[in-house]
Amino acid sequence: MTASPLTEILALNRFDASRTDGFPEELAERVQRRSATFGASSVLFYEQPIEMVRAEGAYMYGADGRRYLDVYNNVPSVGHCHPRVVEAISRQAAAINIHTRYLTRIVETYSERLLATFPAPLSNLVMTCTGSESNDLAMRIARTGSGAEGFIVTEAAYHGNTALVTEISPSALKTRKPAAFVRTVPAPAGDDDPSTVGARFAADVEAAIADLNREGLGVAALVVDSIFSSDGIYADPAGFLRPAVEAVRRAGGVFIADEVQPGFGRTGSGLWGFSRHGVVPDIVTMGKPMGNGFPMGGVVTRPELLEKFCAETGYFNTFGGNPVAAAAGLAVLDVIADEGLTENAATVGFHLAEGLRALKDRHAAIGGVRGAGLFIGLDFIAPEGGGPDTQLATHVINEMKKNGILIGAAGKYGATLKIRPPLCFSKADADQVVETLSGILGNR
Amino acid sequence: MTASPLTEILALNRFDASRTDGFPEELAERVQRRSATFGASSVLFYEQPIEMVRAEGAYMYGADGRRYLDVYNNVPSVGHCHPRVVEAISRQAAAINIHTRYLTRIVETYSERLLATFPAPLSNLVMTCTGSESNDLAMRIARTGSGAEGFIVTEAAYHGNTALVTEISPSALKTRKPAAFVRTVPAPAGDDDPSTVGARFAADVEAAIADLNREGLGVAALVVDSIFSSDGIYADPAGFLRPAVEAVRRAGGVFIADEVQPGFGRTGSGLWGFSRHGVVPDIVTMGKPMGNGFPMGGVVTRPELLEKFCAETGYFNTFGGNPVAAAAGLAVLDVIADEGLTENAATVGFHLAEGLRALKDRHAAIGGVRGAGLFIGLDFIAPEGGGPDTQLATHVINEMKKNGILIGAAGKYGATLKIRPPLCFSKADADQVVETLSGILGNR
Repeated sequence: MTASPLTEILALNRFDASRTDGFPEELAERVQRRSATFGASSVLFYEQPIEMVRAEGAYMYGADGRRYLDVYNNVPSVGHCHPRVVEAISRQAAAINIHTRYLTRIVETYSERLLATFPAPLSNLVMTCTGSESNDLAMRIARTGSGAEGFIVTEAAYHGNTALVTEISPSALKTRKPAAFVRTVPAPAGDDDPSTVGARFAADVEAAIADLNREGLGVAALVVDSIFSSDGIYADPAGFLRPAVEAVRRAGGVFIADEVQPGFGRTGSGLWGFSRHGVVPDIVTMGKPMGNGFPMGGVVTRPELLEKFCAETGYFNTFGGNPVAAAAGLAVLDVIADEGLTENAATVGFHLAEGLRALKDRHAAIGGVRGAGLFIGLDFIAPEGGGPDTQLATHVINEMKKNGILIGAAGKYGATLKIRPPLCFSKADADQVVETLSGILGNR
Repeated sequence: MTASPLTEILALNRFDASRTDGFPEELAERVQRRSATFGASSVLFYEQPIEMVRAEGAYMYGADGRRYLDVYNNVPSVGHCHPRVVEAISRQAAAINIHTRYLTRIVETYSERLLATFPAPLSNLVMTCTGSESNDLAMRIARTGSGAEGFIVTEAAYHGNTALVTEISPSALKTRKPAAFVRTVPAPAGDDDPSTVGARFAADVEAAIADLNREGLGVAALVVDSIFSSDGIYADPAGFLRPAVEAVRRAGGVFIADEVQPGFGRTGSGLWGFSRHGVVPDIVTMGKPMGNGFPMGGVVTRPELLEKFCAETGYFNTFGGNPVAAAAGLAVLDVIADEGLTENAATVGFHLAEGLRALKDRHAAIGGVRGAGLFIGLDFIAPEGGGPDTQLATHVINEMKKNGILIGAAGKYGATLKIRPPLCFSKADADQVVETLSGILGNR
């Protein structure tokens, strides 16, 4: 799922609806109307929000007549308004759009195509409408499968917005801790030693298991986004997740890989983030990039786990697996393959990371650069060991916007620049990010 | 949400994947492939499932070359593949499709248009992707708003598929009762006296409140689908819900009107089912027909309730309120108005109910006919006071299919024919239903 709402709000300077002075008159009116309808749930990016009118590839176009390079949005993953996805949606919406209690050929085709990208034991698919619905269902499958109640997640995790999933999304809870059945473990961090991070993470997970067992809850699952998006992005060394996954399995729990963030080619090596770690999850959840913006999600698991769940609870998702979603999903898989987007994520991601690492040598404010493919985190640090520099991240994000680049932040402190553009990002786009960032940092 | 999965499965004769003998070879293969991918979660309608290839208005077209009249599907509420909705989706998907952290004009327009259809205190909207997400969020808003934990629903209610919402969907629980914070009350039933049903229902709700209070839970909300879809459809007398709603408010709880079923004109009098009862809900939830099949849902509430919730929990829905959903939703509102679909629901619904009541006089197997607009329930009863006749309902549903009519069942026993076609249903379509049903019943 998306990065921590709290840290994003922090770093993106959540717009305060009571303060529209200085805005162009029309924008002020639009913002006030928006606040009147969305009320307290309205969150707009930037000190002065942007109205968008059109998007294409890695670019969005504002009502202000400006073009913005999108370095934030992983939903339109194969490119904003990709013509093949748009055509697939349009064609299928005009033909038939019903639920899965009737057979439709395109839904069967998509299910088989998608499942073929997973290791053999993961042969069943439940289609949902969002990553949140996927994680909600996955948690329940884990509970019936394990007979246990407890979940282990990282400290600043975000896995979605339903009541149950919010409990394993500490970053969404403003005034309280997660429910009693949840244990949090520190995510990997920039100062973790790569040679020991796997053992350290596994030891923390084992301690959490022991604590859950002491309370009689047991461990149903470890839920991890293998790119640790909202925790601040942590990808290396590939394989460091294995000991933790093995520990959970020894304790009778399962491993849920939340692929909403790393999935569909973003990490540049295969379609799925978990494969970098050499583990086969028990349950995989998908969302955001699956339909390039068409609302769809999915849960992939082993047949016996799904059977146990379905024996207890009737699960039906009206919109889940509708033929238009299948058409969008198929087009996404086709475009990723035909345009070599996984390879592009690897190549351009490498080029971008190189450029950012070169910046690090020139700017003391940059503490670290890490990631995989087109998902890169860059830490801002205050001078002389001052720790994470949230204020600088906020400043950079707003300045980048003024320079026509849309970018966000992640991490517990919102001090990590979250670089997560559509996968059609070019080397020239990457160079623009590096040069603009360098200019904004100046002599910092 | 949809009617009770359990009773539907019962009445529609859930297809058993191990038994494809007698099927045309290609269908057998398709069904086996489908079972291989969807696993235990696969539910297909009918003894011999149908592959659908195309749909238009109130009709679907099978791969078997047959045309089917759709009397079941309330999702494509303004008609399957309505050209104005398809065009709106296609146009917007090609222009821009992003989340609500940027302003887009069409999202603001839709929010204002939709909110204008509600009574004044209901002035805030949160857009989601499904009815389930809407009810999940509504329950949490009710809890923070009331400071209480308990929910009251009807015995065979179905409100959605998330972990939390499943607890208030007794009909989805196969092996256990709802959670401890839920109380169920008997839904209105065919044998309720119209002059006392309001008082009876309120008394049951008051008893549930007392019980929740005894347990220290308090009442957060009464959640009601005002057409009582999965309980067997109960609409009259208009207004009978009021005493129960008043009782809940006196106890500090709120009233959540689940408009996933009755909403968007189906009941033939205004857009919303609650208005028939002369009550203004505290929270209204929407889903299915909102986008005519495009995955979208919504929660409408009073600003102070939303504020309380948002102060505690960050809520963001990535796909919720995307511009394509707004375009679909706007087209749906336009079509309902321009084609007079609410009036059509009233007129054709009245004509259909009259036809069915005339049948009741000729067929002893029909125990009762009730409903509002194009949502009608028809009870089958066994001879000589034998009670609900589930077997006959199953027989009728499968025979209707052979006669080219798709129809489902509802109610605790699955013995109530659920008549819920797209709102573009014509009098000729209605006559076809009545005549076909009469022919199937023969001298019963």
